[in-house]
Amino acid sequence: MIIGGGFAGLWATRALAGDDVDITLVDRANHHLFQPLLYQVATAGLSAPAIAAPLRHILRRQRNVRVLLAEVTGMELSSRQVKLHTGDTLAFDQLLVAGGATHAYFGHDEWAPHAPGLKTLDDALAIRRRVLMAFERAEAARTEAEAAAELHFAVVGGGPTGVELAGTLAEIARHTLKHEFRSIDPRRARVRLIEGGASLLSSFPPQLQAKTRAQLERLGVEVLTGTPVSAINAEGYRAGADFVPCKTVLWAAGVAASPLGRLVAAGREAQLLDRAGRVKVAPDLSLPGHPDVFVAGDLASLTQANGRPVPGVAPAAKQMGAWVARNMRARRAGRPTAPFAYRDYGNLATIGRMAAVVDLRGLRLSGLPAWWFWLAAHVFFLIGFRNRLMVLIEWAWAYWTYERGARIVLGADRPADR
Amino acid sequence: MIIGGGFAGLWATRALAGDDVDITLVDRANHHLFQPLLYQVATAGLSAPAIAAPLRHILRRQRNVRVLLAEVTGMELSSRQVKLHTGDTLAFDQLLVAGGATHAYFGHDEWAPHAPGLKTLDDALAIRRRVLMAFERAEAARTEAEAAAELHFAVVGGGPTGVELAGTLAEIARHTLKHEFRSIDPRRARVRLIEGGASLLSSFPPQLQAKTRAQLERLGVEVLTGTPVSAINAEGYRAGADFVPCKTVLWAAGVAASPLGRLVAAGREAQLLDRAGRVKVAPDLSLPGHPDVFVAGDLASLTQANGRPVPGVAPAAKQMGAWVARNMRARRAGRPTAPFAYRDYGNLATIGRMAAVVDLRGLRLSGLPAWWFWLAAHVFFLIGFRNRLMVLIEWAWAYWTYERGARIVLGADRPADR
Repeated sequence: MIIGGGFAGLWATRALAGDDVDITLVDRANHHLFQPLLYQVATAGLSAPAIAAPLRHILRRQRNVRVLLAEVTGMELSSRQVKLHTGDTLAFDQLLVAGGATHAYFGHDEWAPHAPGLKTLDDALAIRRRVLMAFERAEAARTEAEAAAELHFAVVGGGPTGVELAGTLAEIARHTLKHEFRSIDPRRARVRLIEGGASLLSSFPPQLQAKTRAQLERLGVEVLTGTPVSAINAEGYRAGADFVPCKTVLWAAGVAASPLGRLVAAGREAQLLDRAGRVKVAPDLSLPGHPDVFVAGDLASLTQANGRPVPGVAPAAKQMGAWVARNMRARRAGRPTAPFAYRDYGNLATIGRMAAVVDLRGLRLSGLPAWWFWLAAHVFFLIGFRNRLMVLIEWAWAYWTYERGARIVLGADRPADR
Repeated sequence: MIIGGGFAGLWATRALAGDDVDITLVDRANHHLFQPLLYQVATAGLSAPAIAAPLRHILRRQRNVRVLLAEVTGMELSSRQVKLHTGDTLAFDQLLVAGGATHAYFGHDEWAPHAPGLKTLDDALAIRRRVLMAFERAEAARTEAEAAAELHFAVVGGGPTGVELAGTLAEIARHTLKHEFRSIDPRRARVRLIEGGASLLSSFPPQLQAKTRAQLERLGVEVLTGTPVSAINAEGYRAGADFVPCKTVLWAAGVAASPLGRLVAAGREAQLLDRAGRVKVAPDLSLPGHPDVFVAGDLASLTQANGRPVPGVAPAAKQMGAWVARNMRARRAGRPTAPFAYRDYGNLATIGRMAAVVDLRGLRLSGLPAWWFWLAAHVFFLIGFRNRLMVLIEWAWAYWTYERGARIVLGADRPADR
C-alpha cells in the first residue's frame, strides 16, 4: 500500500511496475500535481489542468496498481491495517506513507484566513481569486487610501515559492494589466517580499542570494529581510515595528508535515517526530521498529552523512520513492535493505520573466541563462506529453504578449461573496 | 450603462466603440464566457480559462469603456439610477440590461442540489466534479447495486445542452476511462437522456431530430422522450412510473430569466414579464414606457413578424446587442429607432465525437460533415485568438487519443466533503 500520489508515492509505484505485487495507491486528490509550477496557476499563467494529471490516467497501463481516491483516517501498524474515511479497513503487507507537507503559521493559525498558502490546486485558485479581486476592488475604491491598501501585495517568506510569487505579481502589475483599468494605474501596485531571516533563498550560495534580490528589485519588488511578521489580520500586517494596511497577504513561509505523520508515530510522537511534524526515519527510510513500513518525501526527516538534512524538494522525493521500492523488494526477498543516499543535482529558483538563479555544484547562473535552464528543466520534468506541450504553448504565448491566459475568477458566483 | 458582459452586452459595447459616449459595463463575473462550449468544461474536455476571457482584457483598447465587477441590486429607472451591491449608486443616460438567463426547476427548487444545471463556469466545474467522483465512488463501492447507482447518469432535458452532455458522457464512459479502473468496467455506465416533450431538439426539423436520436443511441445513450421527470432526490429520480436509483442527475431542462428582469419591470411584472420572467420588449428592444432603457439577449422576450419568438441563442443575443447600440445612437441624435429583425442563419447542435446536426435553411447535415461544420463554426466564433488556438490544440489532441485533458477534480480538498 502506498499512501500519497505525489512525487515520492508515484515514483515508488512506478518503480514497482515489474514486481509481482498488488499495489493500492491511496490519495485524497484524483490527480498528481506538479507542485513546482503551482505558483503559475496562482498567478493566472497556467490553467489548473495544465499542471496536473489524473493518477488513474498516469498509471492506467500498470496493471498491478489499483488507485483509490480516499482519505486515510487511521493506521494500526502492528496489525498492518489502514482505515479510510469511508469506514473501510485495508490490510497491507508493506506500506509507504508519503503524505507530503502543508503550510504552517508558526502557531498563528488565526492568520490562515488572511494569508492563504500554496500547496494544492484549490489553494492556487483561491490565491488567483484574491489577487485578481484586489485589482477589481481597487478600481471600484472610493478613496486613494482604500485603493492603495488594495494595491499592496505582501508575500511572507523568502524561499523559492515566495520569490516566484513576488516576482510574478510584480510582472502582472507592471505588464499584464497595463491598459485594462480606468480609475487606477496597476503599475502603482506595491509588491513586498518579507523574510524573517537574514537572506532570501537560504539554501543558495550568498552570491546567488544577492543576484536574486537584485533581480527582484529590478522587477519592482520591495525586498525586506531580517523582518519577522508579527501580526496579520483583515486590515493588514505588522512587519518589524510598522502596521501596514494591506488586503492581500500571501503565505510562503512555514512548512508542516502532513497529519499522517502523527498517525504513523501514534504513541511515539516525542521520539519519532521532528519539530515540523516530520517522521524521523531510519537510514533505509523505514519507520524505526516497523521494517515493512516506510516514509518518504516531505513527510520524512533524514540527516545525510554530511550532517545536512535531505531537503524537501521534488528530486529528493522522487529519489526516496524509488529507493523505498528497492528496499521493499529487498525485504520481500529476505535481503538486507540499503541506506538512502541523496544525490543533489543542484538547486533552481525562478524569479520572473527572464530572471532565475541556478546552482549546479560549481555551475552558477543567474538572469536570462538561468531562466532558460529553469524553463527547460521544468518542461522536461512535467508529467505527461500532452501537458508539456500545452504548457510550452501557453508560455510561448505569454512570453510574446505578456498576457496571462488563465485570468478567470472561479469559485464564487457573486461578487458580494468574494 | 450596460449590465451584463455576455453576448448581448459585449456586442453592444463593441458596437459603441466609435461613439462619443462614456460606457460603464457592469458584470458580476470578471470574464466573458463562451457559453456554447461550457459543456466541454463540464465534461473535462477543456479547462475553464480556455472558453473565457477577462472582460477588461477584451475591451482594454476601447477607451470609452469602464468595466466594473459588481452585482446590480436595484434600479430606479425614472431617476435613471442603478444600485450596486457595494451600496454605490450609478447614474445613466441610456441603459442596456442584458442579464441573460439561468436554469429553472419548474417550481421544484428542492431538486437543485441533486440535479445541478449548467450556466456558469462554477456550474461546469461542479458538474465535472460530480461526474468524475461518481466513477471514483463506483470503484470503491462495496456492492454491485451501489456501483450500478453510481454508474447511472441521467440528463434531464433534450435540448442542445442535454444532447451534448449525454453524448459526451457516453463517450467518456466508453472510451476515455477504459483501462483506468480495476473493480468496475466504466463501459457498463448507463447514460440516459430524458425529455418530457415528444422529441429531442424541438427547434430542429423532424428528420434531424430522428438522426440525433439515432446518433445518440449509437454512442450508447438511452433516449427517453415523452417522459416527464416528476421527482429528484439524493437517491435517484422518477421518470414516468419508475423510480430509478441514480447518484448523478444533470439538469438541462428549464430556463428562467435573470432576476434583473424583476428589477426592470418593478411594479409592472404582470404586464412586462412572460412566464419565464423575460421582459417583453418593444419592437425596437426598448422597455415600454422607457425609450432610453433597452433589454437584449436571453432576458428579452420578443415575437418576430412570423409569429415565432426570437430564440435564446448566441447569434440572436449578438444581433440584439448590436441593434441596441444602433437605437441608442438614434435616440441621442433625435432620430427614430428601428424595430429589430432577427436574421436566422440556422441551427447547429453537437452530439459527440464525429456526430452533430446542422440545419441551415435548406442545407441539412448530420454525422461527420455536420460535426466538422460545428467544430469550424465554434472555433471561429470563440473570442480571442489565443483561446481559439488553445482549444484547437486541445481538441486535436483529444480527437486522436480519446483523452480529456481537464479531468481534475477541483473545489473540495477532502474526499469526505465531496
